[in-house]
Parts: sequence; structure tokens; C-alpha cells
Amino acid sequence: MWNVLWLNVHLATGDEALVTAGDGYGCIRNGAVGVHDGVICWIGAQADLPDVPENLATRIEDGRGGWLTPGLIDAHTHVVFAGDRSREFAERLNGASYEEIARKGGGILSTVAATRAASEQELLEASLKRVHTMIREGTTTLEVKSGYGLTLADEFKQLRVARAIGEQLPVRVHKTFLGAHAVPPEYQGRADAYVTFLVEEVLPVLHEEKLVDSVDAFCETIAFSPAQTEILFEAAQKLGLPVRIHAEQLSLGGGTVLAARYHGLSADHLEYADEQAVMSMARHGTVAMLLPGAFYFIREKQLPPVALLREHGVGIGLATDCNPGTSPVLGLTTVMNMGCTLFRLTPEESFRAVTSVGARALGLEQQVGMLRQGMRADMALWEVTGPHELSYWVGGLQPTRHIFEGI
Amino acid sequence: MWNVLWLNVHLATGDEALVTAGDGYGCIRNGAVGVHDGVICWIGAQADLPDVPENLATRIEDGRGGWLTPGLIDAHTHVVFAGDRSREFAERLNGASYEEIARKGGGILSTVAATRAASEQELLEASLKRVHTMIREGTTTLEVKSGYGLTLADEFKQLRVARAIGEQLPVRVHKTFLGAHAVPPEYQGRADAYVTFLVEEVLPVLHEEKLVDSVDAFCETIAFSPAQTEILFEAAQKLGLPVRIHAEQLSLGGGTVLAARYHGLSADHLEYADEQAVMSMARHGTVAMLLPGAFYFIREKQLPPVALLREHGVGIGLATDCNPGTSPVLGLTTVMNMGCTLFRLTPEESFRAVTSVGARALGLEQQVGMLRQGMRADMALWEVTGPHELSYWVGGLQPTRHIFEGI
Ligand SMILES: [Zn+2]
Ligand SMILES: [Zn+2]
Repeated sequence: MWNVLWLNVHLATGDEALVTAGDGYGCIRNGAVGVHDGVICWIGAQADLPDVPENLATRIEDGRGGWLTPGLIDAHTHVVFAGDRSREFAERLNGASYEEIARKGGGILSTVAATRAASEQELLEASLKRVHTMIREGTTTLEVKSGYGLTLADEFKQLRVARAIGEQLPVRVHKTFLGAHAVPPEYQGRADAYVTFLVEEVLPVLHEEKLVDSVDAFCETIAFSPAQTEILFEAAQKLGLPVRIHAEQLSLGGGTVLAARYHGLSADHLEYADEQAVMSMARHGTVAMLLPGAFYFIREKQLPPVALLREHGVGIGLATDCNPGTSPVLGLTTVMNMGCTLFRLTPEESFRAVTSVGARALGLEQQVGMLRQGMRADMALWEVTGPHELSYWVGGLQPTRHIFEGI
Repeated sequence: MWNVLWLNVHLATGDEALVTAGDGYGCIRNGAVGVHDGVICWIGAQADLPDVPENLATRIEDGRGGWLTPGLIDAHTHVVFAGDRSREFAERLNGASYEEIARKGGGILSTVAATRAASEQELLEASLKRVHTMIREGTTTLEVKSGYGLTLADEFKQLRVARAIGEQLPVRVHKTFLGAHAVPPEYQGRADAYVTFLVEEVLPVLHEEKLVDSVDAFCETIAFSPAQTEILFEAAQKLGLPVRIHAEQLSLGGGTVLAARYHGLSADHLEYADEQAVMSMARHGTVAMLLPGAFYFIREKQLPPVALLREHGVGIGLATDCNPGTSPVLGLTTVMNMGCTLFRLTPEESFRAVTSVGARALGLEQQVGMLRQGMRADMALWEVTGPHELSYWVGGLQPTRHIFEGI
């Protein structure tokens, strides 16, 4: 007997084998899903079930005509942080310049200071509150970056908190080491030495503790150069860790080509990416992770090269980029709407961007991101007229059921 | 004995008597609020309470250090509608032109057709679902417009549904007659005759049934002219009903000046309003109701004249404009963020825009919109560091308690 059988549901499987030109969601109307041991063990039309429901599963769930989708995947977040930047937001709108705010200790380094000062328990509590909201909005898989610690002990603390989130809440956590997020105050003007510190003294230790699922770097003129990033990627490769990158957000810097060359899982932001960058992503299967929340919040005007990404067949992902300075965004359906409204993605693209493509960006495409036999039963049930409606509302939409590993 | 005493709360009263240059929220830290018969009967610092709490109130509520604000006021919505325009949204993103969609029966007239076809019960159920979400996001007062019926019977139905919402859910409803929303198919090319029909056969009947709290018109070249609008306003004035207007959204048409001359409660949208329009609002105390959800959703570039509104001391309101075609927005804190991010309002302005100014736009300023002795106890409790944080998150923020008339 299966544990659960979902009946009376329409399915937006996102299964690439079912996605067709006319149906970008892989829909099965009047479907059914059987779950056993947290895994999808049967999926299809309800009419094709091999027996009467009562003979198949211990528990029957009635979806009441709603739409069942893969649980949403937020593949780029900085959700583990301490401190509060909302006051800085208010000050800026009241006329304070970036310089004044920096003089008062604002900006990213204020988050670093607060995150360092917080105890592991405080950091966990602050983060759990935000992840609760993310889950309420439909997220079942969450990438979490370090990068507000920037010392061995504090990066350690951030990634342990990331792991604890996955242990305490019904959400799958992918832990990304982003020591190369900013040059910390104690290394000011010595970025090379900081990168050496990261590859020699931090990354190996965190890896040893199994706290690193991938390695990221913020590759921009205001942060780390491609040469510095490559030293980090080289170290990651030696440890067998996949890489990803923050690149081409503020200028065309070459980070995307570099990350693709290292078979990067994703290159993220990409407003200034050119055709060469897009072609390198296509060649190496690197996902283009677009972050419209940050685009909106910092009032960027340069649009990412969506037409080029389509033309070269690069997978387009979407994520919240949840962070206190440039993207205080928690809900993925809000991001899906922004993907459509601001970047002119189709709702079909937005849907795949937070399901199958999001899974690929985390190397989890064999486990989550589609409703398919053998995949983990991470799902969300929505009271909507179809999966396109997930991209339509500007916030406020929540699944009526959040299902993690079948529960 | 009071019914309830709230302790352990910080108060963002929005009380204009307490708002100062340094504190645009009228804050009382470590405050307390006594409620009796749904009205605020005491408010101040907890240390100034006239007796020990147990002697003052039957029930003590512990705010646990959260912030208590006036319940949020959504002073411009079209939330009572039937049908679904999310598919039209998807088709447009998949390349369908406005013409193709209109040929298939899309656009506002598709909402009119669906609203006419729906039974009163169906219309109520569809609307209640959306208002549930609005309430979950902090709204306690809601303006609801007709304007998708455009016959006597169907405008009647829409406004009865609006009234029923206020009877069934913990929310105060202001009912606005917007028969002059669009020229219905049966009056195509005969807008003047339609206006005559509205003033002679519809408005008096609805008014008689006490279904009209104010009268609105969509004054644009694609809808009704200022001359047609004035005929309607004249009729409203004779019945003693206040007016409001949709104006200067797509072009400078003169509607704002007209509405102000009729002592309009608000002029709404206003992207193309000029200094003359702003001065007329200032002279007559008309609120400028800005609608960033629609601005965002239709990707408008023309910004409303915020600097002029400030200069002339016009009250700036914000609302969702919740409607299926141009603003599928339900949550007011999302709108507060858009007011700041897109229109560069300060968080203080955004806060007043959905509290005291919103109340003024509905003629309810003696009842709601501030925490002050004698006002209705419509409140929301938020787990935030201060009221500025309500404008900071891009969606996802919800009050931990929604309090309507003290409950
Ligand atoms: Zn980021
Ligand atoms: Zn409107």
C-alpha cells in the first residue's frame, strides 16, 4: 500500500517529457499522484489508476479540483543574516546619500557586523522567521549562501544555521559557500590575500564538515576579479565541488564565461551579459539565474538578455535573491510575476524557472523540480484556474497545501 | 471595565497631532491601548495607565513587543468581479496582440460579461476569496467599486455583494458607484445616452437602497469625457453623495480639476496630472490616490507628480486598485513598497497613505486611520522593528493579529 494517494487534482508536472509546444507545463487534467516513502510512486490520469483508491493507499487526499505543482525552488538566497537594513532603506528615501549611510556603518558591511555579532541561536531564529514565510509562499527547496561572516568561524556559523533550517523546517536546503561575497574590513585593500585565506583556511574546513554543496563568488569590479574568482573555482574543482557565480549585474566583467568554463551550475543576475556569455552558458549547460527582485528594488534599467538566452537554449531560472540590502523578497510567486512583468518571460518560462530549471541550478534535477515517478514528493497545491495563474498575481498567492517529502 | 487592554506594544498611531518632523508615524514606544465597545477608549504610554491592568479591562492582550498600527485602508479597489483574466495575461506574454485578445472577447468587457453572467452568490464567493487575502495582509477598510455590471440589475448585484462582504468578514466596506467605468456593448457609440441612463435610472435607485457611499467615473479619452463626468457629478451632488475620479492615468484630460471643483474625496492614478490639477486638489482638499500596482503591471513610464503634490500639501494616498486587467494586487504592504520603490515616497508617506490619508479619501477620517481615543479600534499588530519596515519587504509581510472593532 502507498502512504498517500492524491485525487481530484490537476497536475502541472513540469515533466520535460510531457512539455509540448502547446502546453509548457506538462499538464495532466484530472490526475492522481501516489506517494510512498516520500517519493512519487505513481502519477497519471485518475482514470488510469490500477485499482480502486482504497486498495492503493493508506490515506486518500482530496485536492478538490486544485492544481498540484512541484514545490517551488528558490535557487539563490542570502536568507541567513542578522541585523536590519530597513532603516537604511527609510533613510535613503528620506534623502540620505549612499556616502552618508556608509559613514554611519550601513551597507553590506553592516550586515556582516550584525551577523558576526549574532549568536548561532539568534541567527537561526532570525532566519527561521523568514524561511517560514518562504514556505508559506510555496517554497520547498532553498539555496542558502554564506557570505556575511567572512571569517572561518562566522562562515561556519552561517552554514550550520543553513543546515539547521533544513533539519527544523519542511524544506530542502542547498548550502553555498560565498566567502567571496565582499572583502572584509580586516582585509581591506588586500583582496588577493583574502582569497588565499579562503582557499587555504576556510573552504577546506567547511568542506570537511560537509557544509558546502557549491561554491559561489561575487565577480564584479566592486568585489572580486575574474582572476581572483578563478583561484577559488580551481580550489572548488579540486575538492569536487560545483561552482556558481554572481556576474554581469553591474557591468560586463567576464565572470559568466569563467563560471561556464568551470561547468558552473548557474550564472546569476546577468543584466549586462553579452552573446559570448550566453553562448558559453549554452555550451556548458550553465543555468541563467535571473533575479528580478533585485532589479526592481535597485531600480535597474538594463534588462537581462532574455532573447539571446532563448535563442541559444539556455535554461532560465528565477529566484528571490532574498537579502537585506537589494532584494527583501520572500515569495517566489511574486518573483514569477516580476519575471513576466519586468523581463517579459512567459508564464510557462516562469513556472519552469522555479521548478525544473531551479532544480538543475542546484544539481538536484534527479530529485525535485518535476512531478514524475521516482522524484521526491515535494509539491504545492494551489486554488487557481491553471498554472499560468501563479505568475499573474502580484503577491498574495499562497498554496493551500505545502507538501514536503509527501507530508 | 474596558473590554480589552493591549500591553507590551509600540504604537505607530498615525495621529496627526503626534506626527512631528522627526517622527512621521506619531510613535508611542511601550504603549498601551484600551478598547471598549469597538472603540479606542484609552491610548498612551503603558507607564501612564490610570490603574493596574487587571482593574482596567476584562481581557489583557500581550503584544510581545510588536508594533500596533491602524488597520490598513485600501481606498481604491475593483475587487468584486467574476471571470478570470490570467489567461489573457499569459496570452499577451506569449505574443498575442491587444487586438487578438479583444477579438477573442478579452479586455474589460470580458469581465463585464462574466460579472453579468455570475449569480450574486457566485460573485460573492469569488470576491470573498480575494478579500480574505486582503485581510490576511492587513486591510481593515476596503473601498469597493461597481462598474463591471453596467446595467441597473448588475450594478445592483455588484454593490449588494460589496455590502455582503462587509457583513460577512471583519472589514469595513465603502461602496462606490462606478457605472461610468466603460460604455457597455449595448450603448456602443452612445456614451451620452448611457450617462443619461446612469443618472436617471441607475444612480437614484441604488442610492435609495443605500448602496452608494460615493460616485466615481473613469474620465479618459478612451472612456468618459469631463462633460459627461460632470453630468454624473451634478446628479451625485443633488443626492448629497461625494464624488471621486479616475483621471490623468493615460493622458492629461482635466478630470482632476473637475473632481476637485466638486469637492471630490480623491482623484486617482494621476500619472499625467499637471500643476494646475495639483493646485486644484490642494484648494479643495482632494486626496491624490496613487496606484503603483497598475503603474507596475502595465509598465507605465510616466511618474505621478509627487514633488508637486508635496509642494502644494496634497494628501497622498496609496491603494491596490485590485482589478483583473491592470492590477492583480491584493496586499497593501506590497503597494507601500511600490510607493517607495517606484514613486520614491518615504516610508512615512506610504504609511499615512494607507492609514490617515486613505481614511480621508473615504470620508472616514473621524472613524478610522489613526490610533486615537474615540476612533474605531481597527488595528494590526506586526512583528517588525518599526513602522518603516512595513514599506521595506516586497510582499510576504503579514500582521500577526488583525483587529477589527477591537476583536
Ligand atoms: Zn545574490
Ligand atoms: Zn480603478
